[in-house]
Amino acid sequence: MRQAGRYLPEYRRVRERMSLLQLCKRPDAAAEVTVQPVDRLGVDAAILFADILLVAEPLGVGLDYAKGEGPVIARPIRTRDDVARLPDVDPDDAVPFVYETARLARRALAGRVPLIGFAGAPFTVASYLIEGGPSRNFLLTKRLMYTDPDAWTALMERLTALTARYLRGQIAAGADAVQLFDSWVGCLAPEAYRRYVLPYSRAVFAALPPEAPAIHFGTGTGGLLEAMRDAGGHVIGLDWRVELGAAWTRLGPGVGVQGNLDPAVLLSTPAEIKRGVGGILDAAAGRPGHVFNLGHGVLPETPWENLRAMVEMVHEMSRR
Amino acid sequence: MRQAGRYLPEYRRVRERMSLLQLCKRPDAAAEVTVQPVDRLGVDAAILFADILLVAEPLGVGLDYAKGEGPVIARPIRTRDDVARLPDVDPDDAVPFVYETARLARRALAGRVPLIGFAGAPFTVASYLIEGGPSRNFLLTKRLMYTDPDAWTALMERLTALTARYLRGQIAAGADAVQLFDSWVGCLAPEAYRRYVLPYSRAVFAALPPEAPAIHFGTGTGGLLEAMRDAGGHVIGLDWRVELGAAWTRLGPGVGVQGNLDPAVLLSTPAEIKRGVGGILDAAAGRPGHVFNLGHGVLPETPWENLRAMVEMVHEMSRR
Repeated sequence: MRQAGRYLPEYRRVRERMSLLQLCKRPDAAAEVTVQPVDRLGVDAAILFADILLVAEPLGVGLDYAKGEGPVIARPIRTRDDVARLPDVDPDDAVPFVYETARLARRALAGRVPLIGFAGAPFTVASYLIEGGPSRNFLLTKRLMYTDPDAWTALMERLTALTARYLRGQIAAGADAVQLFDSWVGCLAPEAYRRYVLPYSRAVFAALPPEAPAIHFGTGTGGLLEAMRDAGGHVIGLDWRVELGAAWTRLGPGVGVQGNLDPAVLLSTPAEIKRGVGGILDAAAGRPGHVFNLGHGVLPETPWENLRAMVEMVHEMSRR
Repeated sequence: MRQAGRYLPEYRRVRERMSLLQLCKRPDAAAEVTVQPVDRLGVDAAILFADILLVAEPLGVGLDYAKGEGPVIARPIRTRDDVARLPDVDPDDAVPFVYETARLARRALAGRVPLIGFAGAPFTVASYLIEGGPSRNFLLTKRLMYTDPDAWTALMERLTALTARYLRGQIAAGADAVQLFDSWVGCLAPEAYRRYVLPYSRAVFAALPPEAPAIHFGTGTGGLLEAMRDAGGHVIGLDWRVELGAAWTRLGPGVGVQGNLDPAVLLSTPAEIKRGVGGILDAAAGRPGHVFNLGHGVLPETPWENLRAMVEMVHEMSRR
């Protein structure tokens, strides 16, 4: 959640010269912005600068980033024929620039903080491919899932294999830990998650080297936490819509948790930020395995000074 | 959730002749469409035809319904001065047409099924007034809440008094039960809900005649269920993103539950609909107080035949 972004002036300067896709494909620049939040905010880890749809671009679906509106897929996947036509993609050939970014970022960090890689989970990547972009209700995705399970299975199997190879490649290139982003999985009923999604996310985690810490993240997952834990990950990412202590009790002591300040709190006052941070640290106190984080990405309009103050509060209050 | 809507051909015919606001203000027509889903689908209750922002219109904020895009508020409430300028509104004078609709609908139903009235909860109505329409992140709402608690309190107190009077008026006019819709409250952290929302929803429920069954509904509330129960309502409405049995266990035996089929399932096949309905009825079996329902509103593209088939499945499976 501390990936570089529009909230950072030095990131906006880089982006004046190139598009998001161009930046991702320029390892020197991508490694530079990977390190920016570490320097500016004093966070305890760097997040590889990339996008969860980079691996979808070589599938030939016509990925582009519309200004301010998120990704657009020109040729969405809607039928079993669409799925069958997808080419076989080897991430080593298709996205070598991501691995090179990881290598350069790790060198630039020089052991100061660990580097976290990431990928979109099969469901969330599938939802973009099917909807053609961001969605409110994910109706096309659910319709394919419910009415053509064979096509759904074929698509998810393809994305599972691709995602597992991609994350293994990031770890080989120097990522110390990885995060699987199932950002939109909270749109599903728990029963649908267990039937149509869990087996594929589980296969991704099972394919990772067990010594690499893995974080499993989604939003709107207040009803899915146990199922996401069953799918895998050493740490379950929580958004802000669950109480951290109650969520951790539901998950049990076998996993760590990450989270979970509402990013909107960073648009308020230092006193409110302090109350939010304190509440989360109190809820986590006495249990090992909490990674303090926001509950979702930094909002572009966030003053970076508030983020830096938040990091200092976390460090200060954690020492006590 | 079974309010008349674009999924019904007879509703679309009425709407060809008048706008949503015109329809709500024509008690004869509004009562007619109130009864339509009972005739067409065979459901066990009628939902008063109205909109949660009807009580906001007399506040002078410039309410209109943009075609297909939901409500638009021309003069949103963003400061404490905006709040202070809001006129005192008596629902008896401001929305008498809603009460007349309730009287006419009750007469037309002639005891066949009960009539359910409803209102938007203070938080959800406030979010529309502040954002100026539907919102993705509710940042303006949260900013007011966090940075100007006095303005927030003043706005919520005004809406609480208005909502309580409005629901009492509906009950007096013939509603057999009422539902409080806190549709967007799922955007909040549980701690923020308890601090900034719960006291007002609780005051609404406390102001209702105790013999009138009251349903408390929200979406994305997988982390808020216990707090919503603490605010009030004989029945807690569940969206589809929680497993009904697990959610009810969390809520305890003191309340009933309503829900919770994913409306998207109604875009699939009879076999999938049957599996969804069966799963919910199985989860509720053996516990009194379950109201079968969708987890949110009927999607406009839903074939009404699927809705009717679902109602028949619920009746058939419940008899067994």
